[in-house]
Amino acid sequence: MGGDNGPAAVVAGLARSAHKNPDIGFLLHGPKAELEPLVAKRRLTDRVEIRDAPGIVRMDDKPSHVMRNGKDTSMWSTIEAVRNGEAEVAVSCGNTGALMLLSVVRLRKIEGVNRPAIACLWPSRNPSGFNIMLDVGADIRADAGDLLQYALMGVSYARNGQGIARPRVGLLNNGTEEHKGRAELHDAHALIGQGAETGEYDFVGFVEGGDIPSSRVDVIVTDGFTGNIALKTGEGTASLIRDFLREAFKHTPLSRLAALLALTSLRRLQKRIDPRRVNGGVFLGLNGTVVKSHGSADATGISAAIKLAFKLARSGFNERLAARVAAASALNKDRAEAADG
Amino acid sequence: MGGDNGPAAVVAGLARSAHKNPDIGFLLHGPKAELEPLVAKRRLTDRVEIRDAPGIVRMDDKPSHVMRNGKDTSMWSTIEAVRNGEAEVAVSCGNTGALMLLSVVRLRKIEGVNRPAIACLWPSRNPSGFNIMLDVGADIRADAGDLLQYALMGVSYARNGQGIARPRVGLLNNGTEEHKGRAELHDAHALIGQGAETGEYDFVGFVEGGDIPSSRVDVIVTDGFTGNIALKTGEGTASLIRDFLREAFKHTPLSRLAALLALTSLRRLQKRIDPRRVNGGVFLGLNGTVVKSHGSADATGISAAIKLAFKLARSGFNERLAARVAAASALNKDRAEAADG
Repeated sequence: MGGDNGPAAVVAGLARSAHKNPDIGFLLHGPKAELEPLVAKRRLTDRVEIRDAPGIVRMDDKPSHVMRNGKDTSMWSTIEAVRNGEAEVAVSCGNTGALMLLSVVRLRKIEGVNRPAIACLWPSRNPSGFNIMLDVGADIRADAGDLLQYALMGVSYARNGQGIARPRVGLLNNGTEEHKGRAELHDAHALIGQGAETGEYDFVGFVEGGDIPSSRVDVIVTDGFTGNIALKTGEGTASLIRDFLREAFKHTPLSRLAALLALTSLRRLQKRIDPRRVNGGVFLGLNGTVVKSHGSADATGISAAIKLAFKLARSGFNERLAARVAAASALNKDRAEAADG
Repeated sequence: MGGDNGPAAVVAGLARSAHKNPDIGFLLHGPKAELEPLVAKRRLTDRVEIRDAPGIVRMDDKPSHVMRNGKDTSMWSTIEAVRNGEAEVAVSCGNTGALMLLSVVRLRKIEGVNRPAIACLWPSRNPSGFNIMLDVGADIRADAGDLLQYALMGVSYARNGQGIARPRVGLLNNGTEEHKGRAELHDAHALIGQGAETGEYDFVGFVEGGDIPSSRVDVIVTDGFTGNIALKTGEGTASLIRDFLREAFKHTPLSRLAALLALTSLRRLQKRIDPRRVNGGVFLGLNGTVVKSHGSADATGISAAIKLAFKLARSGFNERLAARVAAASALNKDRAEAADG
């Protein structure tokens, strides 16, 4: 209910996924009277179970307000379905802050995780077409231990969501030389390097902003402040170039003709950098998977988020992630005890 | 001497600027025997005075090493010419870290400036075509007072380099809501807001990564770590899209034909986002102006950096900036004394 385009866009995206994939079942949360006709219109009545929830979380609602007064909202009901095991994964395009707080409080953090993170997909030069970056906004702080956990969670996501057997991890910094960057980044460099063998990933060391879409890395680790700035800067740059490209092709009658001929090529480009295709930030580190779709998502965007959610649920992603983090915690404990002894 | 393309590219760029603008005089620093034939070939002998300096600062030289042992280098000689008043502004495409350290130590900070900053130009939707962002890498730390000084320095740059009478300043954060971001950003928000009236700028508050190229702001203020990540992420995204566009137009024979017809339009786009045209990070806050060109700059890039340097020198930029900072320091002192009284 909380997306910019209302429930019609959500049901349209759901219909698209339902037609493509007969193995998905849907629980749809919101005011029953409003949702029922939308579902009937798309002939989805036997694929979709509606959970009546009259309240709506608005984009400008404060997360703490939702936490106190939001029990009747569609967002609460959605998270609750994951909590009590009825749903395997939640998809929402509502208020990110409220969704995060609700997810953390109701689903709780996985044993051993200090800070949950939001991971996003980034168009890249890699064969899969995407790199993973985290954290892109769950928490503005992260110490070296948190950054190690982000690396482990990102590796699990790359393995189960992207099918990369041995992901390459890079740590975002303002230069690749070892002396660059803040103190916590130097500590994280050591920790992530030490964890590579047991974690079954490769650590490529520090990477720069220009490396985020590169083919030398699969998972980019950073704190939520820096990751948020990088993500929005990348989106803003892509949108600027899109506008400039449109203007360039409108400049003269000849360029309009050229644009017509170039349409297929431009669509090919558009498809590779379409933010709707990378739709779906994933909350990592909780007892349950939550996929956060863009607030402005349309049917294509919603359907992409559902596809990602299905893939993660099917791979048993969350259990594997929990096992990884537990193993790393145990290892660190052993090391600490050995050091003490 | 320290650029990726050697002195030939520098002299080619210099020739371009010399032909366009009869009012510029040049001091060229480096090994005389190597530079003399290059200058003669371009028929620039009466426009260029060569200062013999046999040593070269390499891209991987440690700044501290250059500081101790670099007295014979072309970089040292260049900064020295600004220091002793022979040159009004220095242009270099060498090692950024070494150039910054040399500039800070030899030119010294302006009275009242705590941390110097590097400002860059960013392609934008504004009429001028560019926004200014600082700091993009001089210092990874910045407290609230430093961020206020960056705002004042950025405003001076926008006024004298871009001709914007009343620049709009934004503070980069992971959201525009007042409760977002780190503590020092909240303090900086208050300080920059208070300084707007006397500083003759408008403060638009927090801006996000997506606003960097927007038309709602002229000057974007941030610390050098975040600014560096944003700058390189933006450049990396633009370069990715450029490659994808090229591939899209090579896909089929028809798309190759379309590309041919679209060439003028694509060149028009290229010109607006060409990193060579925005070439020239400016070191702000020192007794003397230093323009840092990309290491990979070619003749077009060098010439753009020289043009910017000329513009800033002619406007008496550095004296005006110093006056602004001094006025703001005096005002803060008055306020502090009034508060104590």
